Amino acid sequence: MTLVKEWKLPKEDLQRAGLQRGVGVALWRQIADGIRAGLANDLADETGRLPPESELALSFGVNRHTVRAAISALAHEGVLHSVQGRGTFVRRRKRLVYPIGARTRFSAGFDGQARDRQSELLDHGQEPASSQVAEALGLGTGEDVLRLETLGKADGMPISRATSWFSATRFPTIVETYRETKSITASLALLGVNDYLRASTGVEARHADEADTNELQLSPGAIVLVTRALNVDPDGAPIQFSFTRFPADRVELVIDTMRAGE
Amino acid sequence: MTLVKEWKLPKEDLQRAGLQRGVGVALWRQIADGIRAGLANDLADETGRLPPESELALSFGVNRHTVRAAISALAHEGVLHSVQGRGTFVRRRKRLVYPIGARTRFSAGFDGQARDRQSELLDHGQEPASSQVAEALGLGTGEDVLRLETLGKADGMPISRATSWFSATRFPTIVETYRETKSITASLALLGVNDYLRASTGVEARHADEADTNELQLSPGAIVLVTRALNVDPDGAPIQFSFTRFPADRVELVIDTMRAGE
Repeated sequence: MTLVKEWKLPKEDLQRAGLQRGVGVALWRQIADGIRAGLANDLADETGRLPPESELALSFGVNRHTVRAAISALAHEGVLHSVQGRGTFVRRRKRLVYPIGARTRFSAGFDGQARDRQSELLDHGQEPASSQVAEALGLGTGEDVLRLETLGKADGMPISRATSWFSATRFPTIVETYRETKSITASLALLGVNDYLRASTGVEARHADEADTNELQLSPGAIVLVTRALNVDPDGAPIQFSFTRFPADRVELVIDTMRAGE
Repeated sequence: MTLVKEWKLPKEDLQRAGLQRGVGVALWRQIADGIRAGLANDLADETGRLPPESELALSFGVNRHTVRAAISALAHEGVLHSVQGRGTFVRRRKRLVYPIGARTRFSAGFDGQARDRQSELLDHGQEPASSQVAEALGLGTGEDVLRLETLGKADGMPISRATSWFSATRFPTIVETYRETKSITASLALLGVNDYLRASTGVEARHADEADTNELQLSPGAIVLVTRALNVDPDGAPIQFSFTRFPADRVELVIDTMRAGE
């Protein structure tokens, strides 16, 4: 660790600092946050190039190793990329568009926007419904629900991380059908629900937490868009309640309100 | 400035650091970002209380004045509040809900959620349409548009900051009608458009830039939800194109896809 030298603080303070979980004390993290914030304020020039590492080091009052660690974290996340001999550039990748409407199907959402799309079942469980989940699904609090933890990737990059709940009584085998089909729509069809509608979607934004940074391959300080969605069957009965985290640097949501009711 | 003492860096480096515009180098800003990030990672206890200033100071390896400045910035923004003799708490204010659907009207959006609502015209101008604005409004690039810069407040707190463009040919007096009515819907009605529909809405999230922090009363590191909206008249002709910034800590968007087409 070079932190001691950089901060010139008593070692015991730094050790204590390192022990404070989640505060994000590591200097490179703070510099990464500073660079990220700077990108919104013309830190990069019109060609997208960042000032040289030596200049950033002076600006932030840290050494070049720390700046390099920060840049490396942001490169890992896809925000920056370094070009040998030319410097570090903002990656102006076009964001993927995730459409939201009454006929939103997760599996079709990103169609045609990536060469390769993958869905992964990270985890699952059976549990008593929390009051929020019970209310959304029209169940009694404590009734059994099945929870699916899934990750979506486009061309190898994580683009969505969802937690979905289903009634364990109505869809007892949804974990198995999802494992087979890798699709909620296909799973529901196998379980007798051939059509469904998106009843409502809430959208909020927050900083990525520790789980997000790990699962979505983000660096601390990144932003996630979080949708809270309820799907209902053609009779209007709730069938799926989900929270989905989208990295805001990779995905934008587009709401087609005009065609929503078709 | 106590920065020199805290960082123990040569004064000239710090001066240079202070001159780097927008990098967000001030130590209290970095600490404010660290606290904000920590809130997503259980920095506060279950009652919402933050560790004492002295503990935060040790954790971050800075002195208490710096921690106090950071807390004061976050209190100004409405994220934290200090209670004399009890400590600093996360303000768990309920977010306002901004509904998005085919019949979205800005003036009605936050109805019933605040005692006092205000709209302000911050600035306006007549200008040639950029290619993006021209394309959205179905105009030729360079045709004249009127731009309205507006700020919405709820109970004294800024909740939205919009930039809207209108055809200067079709709505030549929209600045004056808005100044009178403080409402886009009422202005359009005065100009002969008695009904309109929200054709599409894009949603993204990013860190607040300098203008956002000033106008929306945010501190650096805060997140804004940005909507890109197009409204059309009953014949489907585009009439208004807008970008609106909502502070993510104060507002969530709710999309009612089922009733959108009614």
